[in-house]
Amino acid sequence: MNTVTPWKQLLLHAIEANSHLKHSSFFQLATIGGNGRPSNRTVVFRGFQDETDKIQINTDCRTRKIEELKHCPFAEICWYFTDSWEQFRINGRIDVIEGSNSDSVKLQEREKTWFASSLKSRLQYLGPDPGIPSITEDLPKGVSLDPSAGPVNAFCLLVLDPDQVDYLNLKTNTRIEYRCSRNSNGDKCWTPERINP
Amino acid sequence: MNTVTPWKQLLLHAIEANSHLKHSSFFQLATIGGNGRPSNRTVVFRGFQDETDKIQINTDCRTRKIEELKHCPFAEICWYFTDSWEQFRINGRIDVIEGSNSDSVKLQEREKTWFASSLKSRLQYLGPDPGIPSITEDLPKGVSLDPSAGPVNAFCLLVLDPDQVDYLNLKTNTRIEYRCSRNSNGDKCWTPERINP
Repeated sequence: MNTVTPWKQLLLHAIEANSHLKHSSFFQLATIGGNGRPSNRTVVFRGFQDETDKIQINTDCRTRKIEELKHCPFAEICWYFTDSWEQFRINGRIDVIEGSNSDSVKLQEREKTWFASSLKSRLQYLGPDPGIPSITEDLPKGVSLDPSAGPVNAFCLLVLDPDQVDYLNLKTNTRIEYRCSRNSNGDKCWTPERINP
Repeated sequence: MNTVTPWKQLLLHAIEANSHLKHSSFFQLATIGGNGRPSNRTVVFRGFQDETDKIQINTDCRTRKIEELKHCPFAEICWYFTDSWEQFRINGRIDVIEGSNSDSVKLQEREKTWFASSLKSRLQYLGPDPGIPSITEDLPKGVSLDPSAGPVNAFCLLVLDPDQVDYLNLKTNTRIEYRCSRNSNGDKCWTPERINP
């Protein structure tokens, strides 16, 4: 069943309405840090996975969030659209897909998002270890990348499978909470409820 | 000692450089939810507390984040400036200051931020319980507020005391991590380290 979930329709509409702003594809991803404290950073939306409501993010295997997600796979996206004054809080579980994954379908998805990103984005995964003290300048000199070469080891695909979405529209002052349950076939069912902003 | 901390100088500069954008005073605040999952929402910057590096946020006592913060007081702000391409990740402990607080200095701070916010902002605290199913329309009819009246019960001041700041500048591709320690007088000392982006 490929019926578009109601919050996904709102989100696709917000993405379209704010697409003239480069930063409209950025959102904040919160995870639980190794020390048990919250951790929060800006990442780039890399589309929905095929026809599902799962959200894709590319990242570097060497960043701290990978350890964090292996320890606690839950995350919350906060996506605020600065032009339409809409906020989506999307909570769910993240699947971390590295090159060592044993699932060939997942490896194909990883390859697909690798080739969907720009050559400039791909080059970043050849840079020095993120988050450790800087000793070299940016990229080592003379690094180049064959545009037809598949994902490098450091490239990681994150797939967030949402099970709760809180939508807020500050222009109309409406807020809707969507909760997910599974029917007997295992398909997702979303129940919306209008709540006070 | 009122020497401005280095990251605060960078942040004040970013606020100034992006001040033509209304949304530049918004940031995302991550906390730990009651279910142990991350929680993330957009809030408004209400200034630094006096001459310190503590960050003020106004909120409604009836929102879910209050329970969350009473359970785990740690939070991380992610503040992305869309025009200057700078990101500040500010981690620290939050002090929740409600009207029932026994510290008179804290109550004064709460009163100060109440009067510093617009009448329209203040009126929101008289609205229906946030996050519960909507039955009434927005504000009950005929609600008015005496501009000289002090904070209502639902008004809450949050004060985040930072102890770690991660600064990223995407234009210059630089990233600096600031860590806080205390000297023998109990004063904060910030140590910066340049790390790989």
